[in-house]
Amino acid sequence: MINNTRIQKAQDRMKQQGIDAYLILTHDDYIYFFCEDRYQPRAVIPAQGMPIIVTFSGEEEEVKASLGVEDVRIFGSVGQQIKDVVQIMRGMIGDKEKLKIGVQMWFGTPAFLLNMFKRANPIVEVVDIAPVMDELRMIKDESEVNLIQRAADIAAIGMKTAVKTLKAGITENEVAAEVEYSMRKAGGHGVATPVYVNSGIRSGWLHGTASDKIIEDGDLVVLDLVPRYQGYCANLCRTFVIGKLNNKQMDMYDTYKRAQSAAIDALKPGVKVRDLDATAKSIYTENGYDEYYVAGIGHSIGLSFEETPAPTIHPGDSGITICDSMVMTVGHPVLSVPGTGGVRLEDTFYVTSKETIPLTKFPSELELNAYTFS
Amino acid sequence: MINNTRIQKAQDRMKQQGIDAYLILTHDDYIYFFCEDRYQPRAVIPAQGMPIIVTFSGEEEEVKASLGVEDVRIFGSVGQQIKDVVQIMRGMIGDKEKLKIGVQMWFGTPAFLLNMFKRANPIVEVVDIAPVMDELRMIKDESEVNLIQRAADIAAIGMKTAVKTLKAGITENEVAAEVEYSMRKAGGHGVATPVYVNSGIRSGWLHGTASDKIIEDGDLVVLDLVPRYQGYCANLCRTFVIGKLNNKQMDMYDTYKRAQSAAIDALKPGVKVRDLDATAKSIYTENGYDEYYVAGIGHSIGLSFEETPAPTIHPGDSGITICDSMVMTVGHPVLSVPGTGGVRLEDTFYVTSKETIPLTKFPSELELNAYTFS
Repeated sequence: MINNTRIQKAQDRMKQQGIDAYLILTHDDYIYFFCEDRYQPRAVIPAQGMPIIVTFSGEEEEVKASLGVEDVRIFGSVGQQIKDVVQIMRGMIGDKEKLKIGVQMWFGTPAFLLNMFKRANPIVEVVDIAPVMDELRMIKDESEVNLIQRAADIAAIGMKTAVKTLKAGITENEVAAEVEYSMRKAGGHGVATPVYVNSGIRSGWLHGTASDKIIEDGDLVVLDLVPRYQGYCANLCRTFVIGKLNNKQMDMYDTYKRAQSAAIDALKPGVKVRDLDATAKSIYTENGYDEYYVAGIGHSIGLSFEETPAPTIHPGDSGITICDSMVMTVGHPVLSVPGTGGVRLEDTFYVTSKETIPLTKFPSELELNAYTFS
Repeated sequence: MINNTRIQKAQDRMKQQGIDAYLILTHDDYIYFFCEDRYQPRAVIPAQGMPIIVTFSGEEEEVKASLGVEDVRIFGSVGQQIKDVVQIMRGMIGDKEKLKIGVQMWFGTPAFLLNMFKRANPIVEVVDIAPVMDELRMIKDESEVNLIQRAADIAAIGMKTAVKTLKAGITENEVAAEVEYSMRKAGGHGVATPVYVNSGIRSGWLHGTASDKIIEDGDLVVLDLVPRYQGYCANLCRTFVIGKLNNKQMDMYDTYKRAQSAAIDALKPGVKVRDLDATAKSIYTENGYDEYYVAGIGHSIGLSFEETPAPTIHPGDSGITICDSMVMTVGHPVLSVPGTGGVRLEDTFYVTSKETIPLTKFPSELELNAYTFS
């Protein structure tokens, strides 16, 4: 059913900012307001009044039953879908010269689609909806934290599978297969980013994939998991060594673990995102890894795998102050040293004024034989 | 290794069209030219001279070894990555007033990223690279067809798993888990679109997902699979009925199958994309389903799950003439009838001047007990 409280809050902010309507084109905000998902979510939330859903004729019956929305515009073709949106915009203009329409400017909004929308709607000025939505999405309510907790539990099941599967001779992709499967079997609804299994020289990548590379003795292997549960994500990353570790690997791992721990200790309401980085970087510096520090040790997570504050994408977000009820990850960037590879650890936390609660709960040991459940 | 023939062809077209360079931001074209993939592919192909790779410092060693490219610009932070691209653009301007830079305008290029690029590069005029790349990407060479064939074989393995797994009482997501796993185990590198398992009222969706809905007796279930192999996709879609079928379901299925068959027969060099639609639609009309016809029965496939011609996204693509060595799917849109649900079949074909060769090979039976391998 529609979450009218969230719609009301968004409408209040839209009015304050002179935005006439929010045109929803992405899954995350569609789920946020309508608590259901579909392949091509399209809706218009005017600053005042009821939301309008734009959907395929074959989905009308179900949308009406599921949402109780009166105004459902039905399209039977892409051309008609565009016309429907144009018609909604025309119906809203009244005596204004231009309509100010908010659109999410993030990974789910392709430039070509936005250009098509602008060409079809010359009466529209498109603005970024972030000033309306960021404040709302940053603060998680109890139901959201519960869903992220569920995703975090699924991530832990995936990581346990990784520990049991990893060995010399298996490919990255074979490990990914087992991890992905175990997370789906645990109730997960797919992944927000492909399962990362990066080994050996590939462990030093900024972000990973899973390839047909055979995992070898002595390899560092980075496993990064972002499963979804009912749209919500949690992020859990661990690094393992195959076989016997060497001193350099151990030193890098200890440095990363201490840097992550220090940043977790610093994660409290009132602190700025950049303070987490200053804390983590000081540990790198102490250990002689200063030149390898990649800024952006923490980011928010929820209906997107990376959402505001997301300082590795928007460096300006490092000035945002962390507050009560945010859900953040700590440990995002890799410590990558040419010749050795990379290490990363990442966990997801619920920040409250009383305490910072870990949602991902998984041991962090570099050596596979240190895990007692293996 | 770099595919210099493809780079040369792109450069010839760029020169003809007055484009100074192609800034690659997406996996598909990165794989097309460099025959490897990474999480954040970034490269510049100037109209003349050697390509420049922009990559993370931790990946330098591997990129140089893998590609043999001399000019690899290394970044250690997002801020520096942007500066590196700006620097490359400045180095290219010479005595020009503005640089004309091509960018792919498709799903992989978010509007916010393009806006950041434009703001950081005021000397740049951004143009759509499609007039350069579409002609190249539409025509598949033998190595590409082999990779798509491999993806098609993986899709068939996934569909066989679906037939074996489907039954009343299981959830859509549980079926998706088994299908996804079997495709990875068969060597697939994940999926280009999430595994679709849409049942009952949800089978009528335009495109699908997989939810916790329990599959029930009498449900139509649409399974749509787009696995990847080394970046290349194939598309295979089937519809099944759980338990006993009814006359309406059978009639819809027969209509769809006949419409798809007619469009497959029409799929030949020299025919326009819209001719496939006219052929398929005439079957719908004969059977009284005229009002339910959704245009766009065929689209190209390769490094993207939908690429030019893609008439459901760009209606203008229906005017494109199909030619020798294209790989196209036939059967894309759902036949969705309120009260009954939806049916779809989709297969992938290699079009040659001699014959149209099916790459996906899987029986199409509505009833599960018609499959002998079950």
